[in-house]
Amino acid sequence: MEKTNEHRAVFALSEYEHRIAGTRSRMAEAGLDVVLCPDPSNINYLTGYDGWSFYTPQVAVLAADDDLPVLITRLMDVNTARMSSMLPDDRLIGFPESLVHVDGDHPMRFAGAWLAEHGYGSARIGVDFDAHYFSPAGLRALQSALPGAVIVDCGRLVNWVRAVKSEAELAVMREAADLADRVMQTAVETIEPGLRQTDLAAAISAAQYRGTDDTGGDYPAIVPLIMTGEGTSAPHITARETRIGDSGATVLELAGVRHRYHCPISRTIHLGPPPRRITDTLKVVIDGMLAVTSELKAGNRAEDAHAAWRRTAEPHGITKASRIGYSVGLGYPPDWGESTISLRRDEATMLEENQTVHLMLGIWNEDWGVSVSNVIRVGASAGEALVTFPMDLVVK
Amino acid sequence: MEKTNEHRAVFALSEYEHRIAGTRSRMAEAGLDVVLCPDPSNINYLTGYDGWSFYTPQVAVLAADDDLPVLITRLMDVNTARMSSMLPDDRLIGFPESLVHVDGDHPMRFAGAWLAEHGYGSARIGVDFDAHYFSPAGLRALQSALPGAVIVDCGRLVNWVRAVKSEAELAVMREAADLADRVMQTAVETIEPGLRQTDLAAAISAAQYRGTDDTGGDYPAIVPLIMTGEGTSAPHITARETRIGDSGATVLELAGVRHRYHCPISRTIHLGPPPRRITDTLKVVIDGMLAVTSELKAGNRAEDAHAAWRRTAEPHGITKASRIGYSVGLGYPPDWGESTISLRRDEATMLEENQTVHLMLGIWNEDWGVSVSNVIRVGASAGEALVTFPMDLVVK
Repeated sequence: MEKTNEHRAVFALSEYEHRIAGTRSRMAEAGLDVVLCPDPSNINYLTGYDGWSFYTPQVAVLAADDDLPVLITRLMDVNTARMSSMLPDDRLIGFPESLVHVDGDHPMRFAGAWLAEHGYGSARIGVDFDAHYFSPAGLRALQSALPGAVIVDCGRLVNWVRAVKSEAELAVMREAADLADRVMQTAVETIEPGLRQTDLAAAISAAQYRGTDDTGGDYPAIVPLIMTGEGTSAPHITARETRIGDSGATVLELAGVRHRYHCPISRTIHLGPPPRRITDTLKVVIDGMLAVTSELKAGNRAEDAHAAWRRTAEPHGITKASRIGYSVGLGYPPDWGESTISLRRDEATMLEENQTVHLMLGIWNEDWGVSVSNVIRVGASAGEALVTFPMDLVVK
Repeated sequence: MEKTNEHRAVFALSEYEHRIAGTRSRMAEAGLDVVLCPDPSNINYLTGYDGWSFYTPQVAVLAADDDLPVLITRLMDVNTARMSSMLPDDRLIGFPESLVHVDGDHPMRFAGAWLAEHGYGSARIGVDFDAHYFSPAGLRALQSALPGAVIVDCGRLVNWVRAVKSEAELAVMREAADLADRVMQTAVETIEPGLRQTDLAAAISAAQYRGTDDTGGDYPAIVPLIMTGEGTSAPHITARETRIGDSGATVLELAGVRHRYHCPISRTIHLGPPPRRITDTLKVVIDGMLAVTSELKAGNRAEDAHAAWRRTAEPHGITKASRIGYSVGLGYPPDWGESTISLRRDEATMLEENQTVHLMLGIWNEDWGVSVSNVIRVGASAGEALVTFPMDLVVK
């Protein structure tokens, strides 16, 4: 592949510089010389890199005294990084094939050695100790190569930078929302009595990739979840070859995805006349969606949004043990959530404008359930739903 | 959901008992009282549990002094475990919602406390310290709840049990292979000049779920990889909205998936008349596939298979830095590989009958590449390809 001076990431360089500046600011607060990102979402956020290489360890390195990050990934994936990141070639470091799935050595030992060789042997280095794709063996290998460094758990430092979306990110999120509306429409049109769940998933999955004539989709960080029949009590069940029943409820949780940005959406569909318990519960859920959305405004706390839900639901005897929403955006399997903001009781996180949360009122009872969810942009005076698909029960 | 006495996992109880016995045997060799499995593939292998809950920590617990495993997962996912695992209800333990994405506590602290309460407070406990979905924070939380226990890295202990497939597993792998042939056929029929990569991925993804009228498919642990144009040098690039060129090579790496068992397959397609470098290289690659397949027999070592490749390729000046294959089967994102057997130089692993390896001769040059791969069952006297799709360059 020829070298190019123009980077080929999704966003302008200024967007990545903005993200790097935001990360630096938190690094300074935390007294860190270096932050390491093993999570593909954070790697993409800081560099643009997008490839399915996260099944072997990899890490983005951002040093306080350097202007751009460095990416350390598997040697065979460096070309993918050249084709998707904004980093110049000399910042793409490939670890050798001999480190792939071997006993007694580890790619993070290589990363640690690189850091030691580049002047960070006695640095204070932050890593999210609970990041996906960062293992205890990886930490040990890193420590072994950096005996003079202080390696600390910096928590969700980069994830918190991600929480507030830029205008450029919001534009992509709105494209994802448009795709989400269309994917849900495809699902609603496709579902019918006797259809195998896997055939419904086939239609949904194709629609996710297809997008529109102008806007190609992307694969979701969570596969289509089809909760049908007794499965409506099982929120993370995946498609089986079992057939949709002749009547009854199906809850769908899907996403529109654009450039790895997710707009999840869930809706409840009922084949045949719905029972009262479903229509009654869904009415409360929709009222709850509206009440919470209006409280998703800058200056409120996460718990204020939860309180709005309780005020709506409790008079009807409806409770929900799990959180009602979480920060959403850029994501790779296994999650489109950002592991930062959770909308729940006693959660003091202050909401800021242009955060995006997946507000999900899924009521999972012992043997039945309903769910409605939207992605809401936190606004100055109220939240804004990014999707337009009606929240009502779809009766077919 | 009503309690049921009949378990609802994919395989008969005797199959899981066989797996548990195999694990126990390795536990005894390693002097372990308990093995903990945080990896969803190992959890599924030992219990049948199948749900998209692995974005929060979870663990299967197998104790040497107990007859069946215990599954500790998020409370809202217990119903999915009831619907998919062979475990009785009293072995499904839900950790509370208050542990999801919080600072200062962790689901693995809950798991550790459960172990302490059930008599394993001073046990010798093995965990794969390099497992996907097991973080340094998870290990620390586990240790904090089990101060009297010895927690050791047991490596790929359960993965190694998985390496040799039972007859029941081979039957499912053969169904996956049949789906792989069909999915590749769909891809070859769909690809055409000017098609967006995302539209090709849509057709592939739908075919993966759809399977046949008799056999529903499942989602793949690795999304369809479409390497086209310059992307043929980028082995783990995912589908973009960029269009397929009017002429040139496309490498596809796909899988047929049945009940989470994977049969990956890769083929090279050329639109328009192929250049000599592609036809010549592919001829050597196919000769290599045949030569290696015949060496994938019980009693050979992994390096013997690699030597067969070198004997075929080196006279033609073709080399490949990366391994040429790896153990494959049950999988969840991010990988369908089992992280055990690697076919490469100096790899002394002895091959056993009914291991299944993804033999992949991907030649990734600086700006072009070709690839052919098959899943091969290690046989008594030679390997057996599970797929039937011709290996030749597809010219369209």
